[in-house]
Amino acid sequence: MRIGIVDTTFARVDMAKYAIEEIQSLVPRAEIVRLTVPGFKNTPWAALKLLREKECEGVLVLGWIGRSLTDKITYAVASMGLILVQLETGKPVIDVTVHEDEAESDVELRNIAIDRARKHARNLVLLLQGRDLTKFAGKGLRQGRPDVGPILEDLGDKYIEW
Amino acid sequence: MRIGIVDTTFARVDMAKYAIEEIQSLVPRAEIVRLTVPGFKNTPWAALKLLREKECEGVLVLGWIGRSLTDKITYAVASMGLILVQLETGKPVIDVTVHEDEAESDVELRNIAIDRARKHARNLVLLLQGRDLTKFAGKGLRQGRPDVGPILEDLGDKYIEW
Amino acid sequence: MRIGIVDTTFARVDMAKYAIEEIQSLVPRAEIVRLTVPGFKNTPWAALKLLREKECEGVLVLGWIGRSLTDKITYAVASMGLILVQLETGKPVIDVTVHEDEAESDVELRNIAIDRARKHARNLVLLLQGRDLTKFAGKGLRQGRPDVGPILEDLGDKYIEW
Amino acid sequence: MRIGIVDTTFARVDMAKYAIEEIQSLVPRAEIVRLTVPGFKNTPWAALKLLREKECEGVLVLGWIGRSLTDKITYAVASMGLILVQLETGKPVIDVTVHEDEAESDVELRNIAIDRARKHARNLVLLLQGRDLTKFAGKGLRQGRPDVGPILEDLGDKYIEW
Amino acid sequence: MRIGIVDTTFARVDMAKYAIEEIQSLVPRAEIVRLTVPGFKNTPWAALKLLREKECEGVLVLGWIGRSLTDKITYAVASMGLILVQLETGKPVIDVTVHEDEAESDVELRNIAIDRARKHARNLVLLLQGRDLTKFAGKGLRQGRPDVGPILEDLGDKYIEW
Repeated sequence: MRIGIVDTTFARVDMAKYAIEEIQSLVPRAEIVRLTVPGFKNTPWAALKLLREKECEGVLVLGWIGRSLTDKITYAVASMGLILVQLETGKPVIDVTVHEDEAESDVELRNIAIDRARKHARNLVLLLQGRDLTKFAGKGLRQGRPDVGPILEDLGDKYIEW
Repeated sequence: MRIGIVDTTFARVDMAKYAIEEIQSLVPRAEIVRLTVPGFKNTPWAALKLLREKECEGVLVLGWIGRSLTDKITYAVASMGLILVQLETGKPVIDVTVHEDEAESDVELRNIAIDRARKHARNLVLLLQGRDLTKFAGKGLRQGRPDVGPILEDLGDKYIEW
Repeated sequence: MRIGIVDTTFARVDMAKYAIEEIQSLVPRAEIVRLTVPGFKNTPWAALKLLREKECEGVLVLGWIGRSLTDKITYAVASMGLILVQLETGKPVIDVTVHEDEAESDVELRNIAIDRARKHARNLVLLLQGRDLTKFAGKGLRQGRPDVGPILEDLGDKYIEW
Repeated sequence: MRIGIVDTTFARVDMAKYAIEEIQSLVPRAEIVRLTVPGFKNTPWAALKLLREKECEGVLVLGWIGRSLTDKITYAVASMGLILVQLETGKPVIDVTVHEDEAESDVELRNIAIDRARKHARNLVLLLQGRDLTKFAGKGLRQGRPDVGPILEDLGDKYIEW
Repeated sequence: MRIGIVDTTFARVDMAKYAIEEIQSLVPRAEIVRLTVPGFKNTPWAALKLLREKECEGVLVLGWIGRSLTDKITYAVASMGLILVQLETGKPVIDVTVHEDEAESDVELRNIAIDRARKHARNLVLLLQGRDLTKFAGKGLRQGRPDVGPILEDLGDKYIEW
């Protein structure tokens, strides 16, 4: 299995380190190709390069997004680019984006970044292995935060047939 | 009839269960191919895969969207991706998205999710059967909520010719 | 002349009825192909189908947009899809969208919907006939509302050469 | 030189008149092909038509944008369409858009429209002639308003090496 | 190495001057092809032209964005265009955008512009040289501002295993 990792010099946590640890613990012989770019807007180009030229089967993109409106627009357009890369190549790209407005403190941001990078690394491995994620469908899983879980079925008596 | 279903581990309700029930009640011999991905941003890749590699005739995408601006951007870009998938393949994709800001309580969210999944499953079946939706055109149908109905014609005397 | 009409079950007014009346009054022998889909997000797929498979020369899309941010995003992505359909096929698509935040009352919304559907049906016919819209250029025409008209030329003495 | 002009019946000023005057004063033998459409969302289709079917070398698009959120979304999607047209054809499209929220009065809006149409007509001619715009790079030129000019170099002693 | 530079007459600082200085100090024999356009919306067309017709290996785009909502939309659509150019050509484009809402004073804006142009020029050179940016991954580098640096690892004892 060959997995690409795209990360940035803009990010404030070396998320790739944790993602690589996770991938190697799951698939010790996985080949990892890493490309670091300045910021999130450069990641679609880099992901395409890893999928096409480096023949990766999937890519994990590790992004970091500031607090301003401009940063949110950057998130929007680069995310659109990452979707286009997937439609163009037919290969999966999972982006791990940490948003500075998600947390109050640096410590919390770092925890989010590490947890999200690890969990999404695992998700990408599972997708590439064709493993079954369906048993977790609708289970309210979260990355970067504790899972919120499903809305319990025993609330079912309150279901209203409109 | 072969129908694809894409859902997520992020969602808090197993909407696919209800969608599949609905499809099977309408077309007992329908083949259903299901692919579960982590979140809504992964659904365009998955939908394309089901349409191309699995030869589904149409896909139902079951998404769940959080309350933050970031979640809304995610909704925008992935929805754009799902439209591109349709233009690329010429096959219909209907997305069922439940937005956490639609309801005050978990129970209400669950009711919305189930109702919307069922009704849009039916819509997709009807589209694939080439059945006539035109008799419902302009009727104010809603999924996830009671229908609001058309604006009544007997208000017509108030029509102003500008 | 073969014209496609795409409308939705979500809309609260049967705009197609008025659009078809208008088309038939202008071009009695026009062929009309109609396809009704659940909501606005399904219209790019439907428009492409009418232009490609049904060989329509142009399409009128009749949409209805709710008041929420989610509805506005839906408007954005599906409108983008309709532009892509035009660039892909080289054929014109005119969308008639009625937004629930445009009016205070149902009656007003219905008036807007009918007026806009009629006027844009006429616009599409004129475009397909290669008729001259240039005489109306800059005239402040509106659909769904009374025309606002041009900004009058005799204000010209106030023109400032920067 | 063959230049396309796309304008709308929605606009409240006949900007094309001023743009054509400007083009003809600069390139008396320029051929101008004009296509008027209802609104800004129709302009990508029209621009592509002029570039492909009418073999124009570049297109000037003259748009008018209302004050509402819906109008701003329209601006976004059609502007995206105009960029796609340029990437598809490799030919330049300059859009002149006048936004109703730019000014307090009709007179001011008209002045903006005329000034912007004239200046961007000149810009398009210069681009098509391969003339050098680089001497104006970073000069703070504006269309529709007086130029703001560059930020002066003699403030340079305040430059801080971070 | 052949590098394209796209800049605008809208900008208020001649950023290209500083970018070119930087490139030449790093790669004295680099060839630089510069194309100046009116505003940021014209840059995707220009970047594509430099990559395709002028055979540049990468492009630096120097943009300037005003304070209004309209300006932010312009930023969004043109940024999307620049990503599309990269996906189309497989070559990197780095955009340096200075936003007027980033600073209180002209002097500060100019400092941001110069610093950002220089640093991103260096980034582009490094990418084209295939040099290793990975040693800076997650280091919180900034362009136009001082680096914010990584979130320190010795906060690690506060990491919570969710």
